[in-house]
Amino acid sequence: MFASSTYTERRRELAARLDSGLVLLLGNADSPMNYAANIYPFRQDSSFLYYCGLDLPDLAAAIDIDTGETVIFGDELTIDHIVWMGDQPTLVDQAAEVGVAATRPRADLATVVRQAVSTGRDVHLLPPYRADNHRLLKDILSAEPVPSRALIEAVVAQRSIKSDEEIAEIEQAVDLSVDMHVAAMRMVRPGLRESDVAAEVERIAHAANSRPSFPPIATVHGEILHNLHHHNTMQSGDLFLLDTGAESPLHYAGDLSSTFPVDPVFTERQKIMYELALASHEAALATVKPGVPNTDTHYNAVRAIVDGMKELGLMKGDTDVAMAVGAHAMFMPCGVGHMMGLDVHDMEDLGEQLVGWNGAPKSTQFGLKSLRLGRELEPGFVLTIEPGIYFIPKLIDLWRAENRHRDFLVYEEIDKWRDFGGIRNEEDVLVTTDGKRVLGKPKPKTVAEIEALRAG
Amino acid sequence: MFASSTYTERRRELAARLDSGLVLLLGNADSPMNYAANIYPFRQDSSFLYYCGLDLPDLAAAIDIDTGETVIFGDELTIDHIVWMGDQPTLVDQAAEVGVAATRPRADLATVVRQAVSTGRDVHLLPPYRADNHRLLKDILSAEPVPSRALIEAVVAQRSIKSDEEIAEIEQAVDLSVDMHVAAMRMVRPGLRESDVAAEVERIAHAANSRPSFPPIATVHGEILHNLHHHNTMQSGDLFLLDTGAESPLHYAGDLSSTFPVDPVFTERQKIMYELALASHEAALATVKPGVPNTDTHYNAVRAIVDGMKELGLMKGDTDVAMAVGAHAMFMPCGVGHMMGLDVHDMEDLGEQLVGWNGAPKSTQFGLKSLRLGRELEPGFVLTIEPGIYFIPKLIDLWRAENRHRDFLVYEEIDKWRDFGGIRNEEDVLVTTDGKRVLGKPKPKTVAEIEALRAG
Repeated sequence: MFASSTYTERRRELAARLDSGLVLLLGNADSPMNYAANIYPFRQDSSFLYYCGLDLPDLAAAIDIDTGETVIFGDELTIDHIVWMGDQPTLVDQAAEVGVAATRPRADLATVVRQAVSTGRDVHLLPPYRADNHRLLKDILSAEPVPSRALIEAVVAQRSIKSDEEIAEIEQAVDLSVDMHVAAMRMVRPGLRESDVAAEVERIAHAANSRPSFPPIATVHGEILHNLHHHNTMQSGDLFLLDTGAESPLHYAGDLSSTFPVDPVFTERQKIMYELALASHEAALATVKPGVPNTDTHYNAVRAIVDGMKELGLMKGDTDVAMAVGAHAMFMPCGVGHMMGLDVHDMEDLGEQLVGWNGAPKSTQFGLKSLRLGRELEPGFVLTIEPGIYFIPKLIDLWRAENRHRDFLVYEEIDKWRDFGGIRNEEDVLVTTDGKRVLGKPKPKTVAEIEALRAG
Repeated sequence: MFASSTYTERRRELAARLDSGLVLLLGNADSPMNYAANIYPFRQDSSFLYYCGLDLPDLAAAIDIDTGETVIFGDELTIDHIVWMGDQPTLVDQAAEVGVAATRPRADLATVVRQAVSTGRDVHLLPPYRADNHRLLKDILSAEPVPSRALIEAVVAQRSIKSDEEIAEIEQAVDLSVDMHVAAMRMVRPGLRESDVAAEVERIAHAANSRPSFPPIATVHGEILHNLHHHNTMQSGDLFLLDTGAESPLHYAGDLSSTFPVDPVFTERQKIMYELALASHEAALATVKPGVPNTDTHYNAVRAIVDGMKELGLMKGDTDVAMAVGAHAMFMPCGVGHMMGLDVHDMEDLGEQLVGWNGAPKSTQFGLKSLRLGRELEPGFVLTIEPGIYFIPKLIDLWRAENRHRDFLVYEEIDKWRDFGGIRNEEDVLVTTDGKRVLGKPKPKTVAEIEALRAG
């Protein structure tokens, strides 16, 4: 973990941003797979990690805004636990590591919260995204838990600006993520299964005592945006799309995407569409700097795609109008990127509108509604840049049947690409005081770089 | 999945075992890691898989005992879902694959259940082990859900006896599990990290589009029974304990343990203790046959350990008395094995007492209380055999300070082994009509077999 002063300072700043009351931060419990004791790998809640650093299940913290005192709630280990799970430092010692002097048994949590409620104090809660924590809050409060907007805004304000030590963690995660991508680029070949690649990139993360920051996408059907199945066998002529990243030791995320041919070189057709997708990626990257609304990043990526599609004859008409009505969403039905930090979609549990839009209402237009980050960029933000081009047969058929955007979409030409698949490049970017910095070591992304790696 | 007749027949038999009412089977939903959309790999509920076969989130089934009709509740895909997650057959078509003609939207589930309750019908529930399903039941019933003992007993009776097609699935899982163990035996060497082995065995499962049936234990500290950390680096002289298994395509489990030296050969000291642990394993295996209570399997394993420890001078006194008071639990504080099937601890969510003890009360003695399966064995049961010998420094110190079992434990001698670690062998066994069959292809387990593999 970071030095105890990091956590103490974060909690002090949080308290300073709020007027009064008690902030309640729930850590996560273990998640059952098929029965209570058969558990998924433990993942701590990210806000709990941010303010309290302890990476163990069944903890909670109360930060008293008025006194500045923090209490960590949890139970010490029994001998049964030690026999089964091994010894570890006492909770008292662990709490001291994150600058917290007071610990109490977990059973006291309800008492403390109820006492605060009964004396009319504000109890500030974050929105529970796990059913067990939702139930815990409901049981303690005897009412549906109501998240505190003041707390959410304070947490978002703090967690949005990454400190140098956080950036170092993120770069560590990105570097490991690059290793995963390079290994995949080297291994693909006709006859291999998607699962071989997915398994290998997970192996690289696990071997480093890390883990994927989200379930890997490793597919010859890149047009399926969140395809989590890995059952296909690679064929000559396929494009392979990999979207995967690892966590740093302190659980900061990396998140990268690459697209590369299963064969050693791109076909001419693949090269044409890949270079268009890459141009869109570079247009988005070039937009990133402080003061720019990230909707600009999105639209610059989209503009490159629309202009390119017009050159290829798949679109027609006025680019601005096509973008305004959302015709481009045929090819890019998603957003250009999202915040990244302790969560791969950073703070998504706190609500996209406050995190990504500064409270402003989001568009409901197909495509744009999936843009997770639209607000003005500030130094210290870390975000992904990941525009893509997708040929989704079901969407082509649906829109064509509806005659949707006929003035902009040339369905007869689009249909010639209907089985092409999907392309996405993704990098992780820090907004600096005067521009941006792409995080982590370089990952091959031009056609020449990818083909050189494959030849090497 | 199996043929639709398999599921139809299982539901018919379930209905025949119950008098009347409505059986409600809840499938699982996706489990969030650090926010709702960042999910762990989906794991369907095993009883839902057993009776309904569909391996997708957000489904439920109601089996009407009186009419014999089954309804599957779930929602068809939207275009948004298809864009993000890919196309799949309609729910109607999938339900037909498991012999179910009737599907209804998920929102109808509450209506159907409430109607049954309001007309005084029994609604049979299984115990919910996930908080979201618990909340769903509580919301539907407006009351704490009460599991149906009649339903649990009926499900346990059916799922305990494995059919030939289930045994074939289990053997497929065990074969893949053997591959994972053999790979680990081949790769260990001083300087490698535990995480390298854990990552490689997971890779083998994932590459086969399988997954570990439980989190892998891969450690030089085998004395920590459920050690899920993989941070140590192997040293010459270490013993490595691997406890891992994979799932079959239909999610039946394999579960094997092996212990082997990090160096190419066992030291003399390792050999002595390993052969004692293996003798205990073989004594347990030799006990398995129909009509034998599995407590005998446990005690025969324990007897071998006590007798061996007496020969080595670590225990003394009368073996039967030592076992009766539980002195052996110093070395084997756990049970000899458990049922295995769609869950690695089969049906553990249904309650150990009904599954493993046929409703009889369990011992509360340290060690024996962890024996998950004590009932009389029947043909068609599949169970693990996994006695072990562990030197747990904290337990040694605790008992020694208490002078516990001084008549049987020679602490001065035990202390010479305090840093030895732990040894466990584990195989998966089918109870046949006249004895038993060890499932899956052979895994090296004698000293000679392990050393030969390492030399090969």
